[in-house]
Amino acid sequence: MKKIMFRCCKCGKTFRIDEVHYRCDECDEPLELEHVKEGKIKDGNSLKQNILQRYSDFFPFLSIDEEVSLGEGFTGLVESKSLAKEAGVEKLYFKNESQNPTWSFKDRGTYVGIQHVLKLGYKRIGTVSTGNMAPSVAAYGSKTKLETFILVNNNIPDEKMNPIGIYGPNLIKVDGDYGKMYYESLKIGKENDIYFLNSDSPFRVEGSKTISFEICEQLDFEMPDYVVIPTSAGGNIRGIEKGFSEFRACGLIDKIPKIIAAQARGCSPIADAYEAGEMEIERVANPKTIAHAIENPYPPSGNQTLRMLEYNGGMAVSVTEEELLEAQGLMAKIGLFGQPASAVPFAAVRKLKNAGRISSEDSIVCILTGSGLKYTAAFAKHDLKSEKCSLEDLSGFISKNY
Amino acid sequence: MKKIMFRCCKCGKTFRIDEVHYRCDECDEPLELEHVKEGKIKDGNSLKQNILQRYSDFFPFLSIDEEVSLGEGFTGLVESKSLAKEAGVEKLYFKNESQNPTWSFKDRGTYVGIQHVLKLGYKRIGTVSTGNMAPSVAAYGSKTKLETFILVNNNIPDEKMNPIGIYGPNLIKVDGDYGKMYYESLKIGKENDIYFLNSDSPFRVEGSKTISFEICEQLDFEMPDYVVIPTSAGGNIRGIEKGFSEFRACGLIDKIPKIIAAQARGCSPIADAYEAGEMEIERVANPKTIAHAIENPYPPSGNQTLRMLEYNGGMAVSVTEEELLEAQGLMAKIGLFGQPASAVPFAAVRKLKNAGRISSEDSIVCILTGSGLKYTAAFAKHDLKSEKCSLEDLSGFISKNY
Repeated sequence: MKKIMFRCCKCGKTFRIDEVHYRCDECDEPLELEHVKEGKIKDGNSLKQNILQRYSDFFPFLSIDEEVSLGEGFTGLVESKSLAKEAGVEKLYFKNESQNPTWSFKDRGTYVGIQHVLKLGYKRIGTVSTGNMAPSVAAYGSKTKLETFILVNNNIPDEKMNPIGIYGPNLIKVDGDYGKMYYESLKIGKENDIYFLNSDSPFRVEGSKTISFEICEQLDFEMPDYVVIPTSAGGNIRGIEKGFSEFRACGLIDKIPKIIAAQARGCSPIADAYEAGEMEIERVANPKTIAHAIENPYPPSGNQTLRMLEYNGGMAVSVTEEELLEAQGLMAKIGLFGQPASAVPFAAVRKLKNAGRISSEDSIVCILTGSGLKYTAAFAKHDLKSEKCSLEDLSGFISKNY
Repeated sequence: MKKIMFRCCKCGKTFRIDEVHYRCDECDEPLELEHVKEGKIKDGNSLKQNILQRYSDFFPFLSIDEEVSLGEGFTGLVESKSLAKEAGVEKLYFKNESQNPTWSFKDRGTYVGIQHVLKLGYKRIGTVSTGNMAPSVAAYGSKTKLETFILVNNNIPDEKMNPIGIYGPNLIKVDGDYGKMYYESLKIGKENDIYFLNSDSPFRVEGSKTISFEICEQLDFEMPDYVVIPTSAGGNIRGIEKGFSEFRACGLIDKIPKIIAAQARGCSPIADAYEAGEMEIERVANPKTIAHAIENPYPPSGNQTLRMLEYNGGMAVSVTEEELLEAQGLMAKIGLFGQPASAVPFAAVRKLKNAGRISSEDSIVCILTGSGLKYTAAFAKHDLKSEKCSLEDLSGFISKNY
C-alpha cells in the first residue's frame, strides 16, 4: 500500500493503515484516510474496468485483487425534467445506486474494504447490519471465500433475513442492546481476528468516494449546486464529500457541491442537532420510520457529519413519513423505484425549495441508495390501482374507459 | 429512420419499419430487422453514453429521444473461477442483467422499443406480462409520459402486482385464456392505437443485441465457446444471437459463440422439440416450474429459436427444479443472487458437462436475467441457517463455534 495514514477527523491524530483502526483512541471520533492531492482518472472505457482500476490514483492500493469484484459501481445518473419542474428547481438528477450487485450503494464500500482486509491477511470479515450492508458483506464475503459474520438484531423479520442468508454467511441474531453492537463488534473483532466492515469504517468511506467521481464524469465536470444524501451512520455522506474534495484538490473540478444530509423525522439525530446549532448529536430515544435503512438512533459518524456540513456549507434536514412516501411515489412515476430511505432526498428537495432554502436556479443530484424491492411493506402505503376485465370484452373496455 | 426493413425470419418477406409489424402475414412467424453489415462501436466512455449512443451504428434511428433512458445496460460481466471449477469448464462468466433499472434484461428492449414507439407518433404502449417485462414497460412508460397498459393474468399474486403498480400504469387483470393474450393484444393494439411491446416484438429483440455487444467488449473481442440463455418467448435469445452475428458481419469478432437455450423441465417446449429433432414446438399442456419468468407454454419465437439453433450450431436443454434450485444456491455462494429462471443456465452448464456435451476446455457466458429479489418464494426452497446469541456471550460464542 502507498505510504499514507489514517487521520482522526476531529483531532488529526494519525494511525498506520497497515493495521485495523476505526476510531481515534483519544477523541472516540471516526478516522479517515489522508486526502489524495494528486491524481487523475485512468484512460479507457469503464465497461472494461472496475472502480478501483479507473480511480486507482485515489486509493492507497499498489495492486488489487480482481477476484473480489462483482461489477459494482458505474451506475446510472438519470435526469428528470418533470420532477425538476415539480420541485421547482433548475435541474434534478438521480444517481441510481440500486444498479449495484446487491442493489444498494453498500457494494462500493464492501468491495474497497475487502481489498484492505486481504492486504492485512485477514481470513474473517463481519458487519453489524439489518439493512443493505448485511447482504452486501455476505455476498462479497462469499465471492472472496472469507469466513463471514453478519450480526443482526434479534427481532429481524424473515423478509430481511432471507436475502442475507441466501449468500451463506454465519448469520447470528444477537439479543441485546442493538445500539451498542457497533462498538461491541470492534472489540469482538479484535478478540476473534474478524475485520468488521461497519457502516463508517474508513475503507468503506473510501468506497463511497466513487459515487462522486462518477457524478463528476457523468456531468462533464460541471458541478451541481447540491448533492442530497439519505444519511444514517454518516459513512456514505462523508465519503461522497471526500470524493468531491479530492477531485478539487487534484484540479479535476473547480468547486465542491454543497452537501445535504437528508433524514426521516422519525430518526433524525443529525438534522435535529444541525437545526439546534449543536455540534454533537444526541441519541434518539424511540426511532420510528418506514425508512429503516437510515433508522440509526446514534450514528457513529454523526458528529463528523455535522463538522463536515459546516466546512462544506451544506445543511441537514428531516422529512415526515408522509413526505417521504409521497416522494417515493413521485419517483416511481418517472420509473425510479427506490426503497423508502432513497426517497428522502427528493422529499428534502421539495421541502427546502418550499422553504426558500434552495432556489429555482439550483441543480441538484439526489442519491437513490437502494432498490424498492428491498422493502416491500411500503407498497401498502401507496394506493395502487388495477382493473379487471374478461379477454372477450378487453378491446371494448379499453376503448370505452381510456 | 434509416432505410431498412422488417424481414420475416422464415420466408424472408419484408415489411416497412415506419409501421408497426410483429409477425409475417403469410407464415405467422416473427419478424426481425434486416441485419446490419457495416458499423463500429462509438468512441468514448460508456459512463457518459447510453446503449443507443454507443452502438448507434447497429440501430435504425437517425436520432434518439434521450429522455427515455433510465440508465439501462452496461451491466457487469463477472468471472467465477470457483464455479468454473465446480462445473469442470475452463472459464465461466455471468452477465448480470439484474443491474438494470428495473432489475432485469427487459429494460434494454423496452428502451429501444420505445424509441420506435415515439418515431411512429404513438401515445400509448402496452405489454402482456406477469413477469419482468411488466414492471419494465410500466417504468419506461411513466418516464416517457406514455399512456401505458399492462395486461396481466387474473390469478397474479399481490407480490407481483405491486412492483408493477408502483409505476402507475393502467394495470388490467384479464380473465380468460392467458395463452391467447399475446395474439389478442396485437389486435387490441390496432383497434385502440396501442403499440404493444411484447416479448418478441422486433424492436425489443433489437435491444437484446446490446447484451452481446457488451460481452464482446468486456471479453476484449475474444469470443467464448458458448452463451447460455434462459429461454421463454425466444425474443432475448434471438436478439443475443443477432448481436453476435452483426458484430461478425462488421468484422468486430471472428466467430459467433454457440448459443444454448436453457429451459426448466416443467415448461420446455423448445428443448423438447430440439431433443425430438422437430422444427416446430408443441404447446405445453400444464406448465409448472418455480422459474416463472420463463414459464411460457407456447413461445411465439419458439420455432424461430429452433431454426436459429440449427444455423448457429447451438443446442437446447432443460433442467429439473432440483437442478435449477441447486444452481441458484451455488450462484448465491459467489455473490450472485438471481431469480430462479436466472439459475437455469448454470444448471444447464453442469448438466451438459456431465453428459459430455460441452468440454473441460470450453469458456462459457451465462446470462443472469433478473434479480433474486423478484421472486422471494424461492427462499423457502433453500435451507438457510442462522444462530442466536446474547450480546454478552457473543465473543465467546464466536471463538468457541467458529
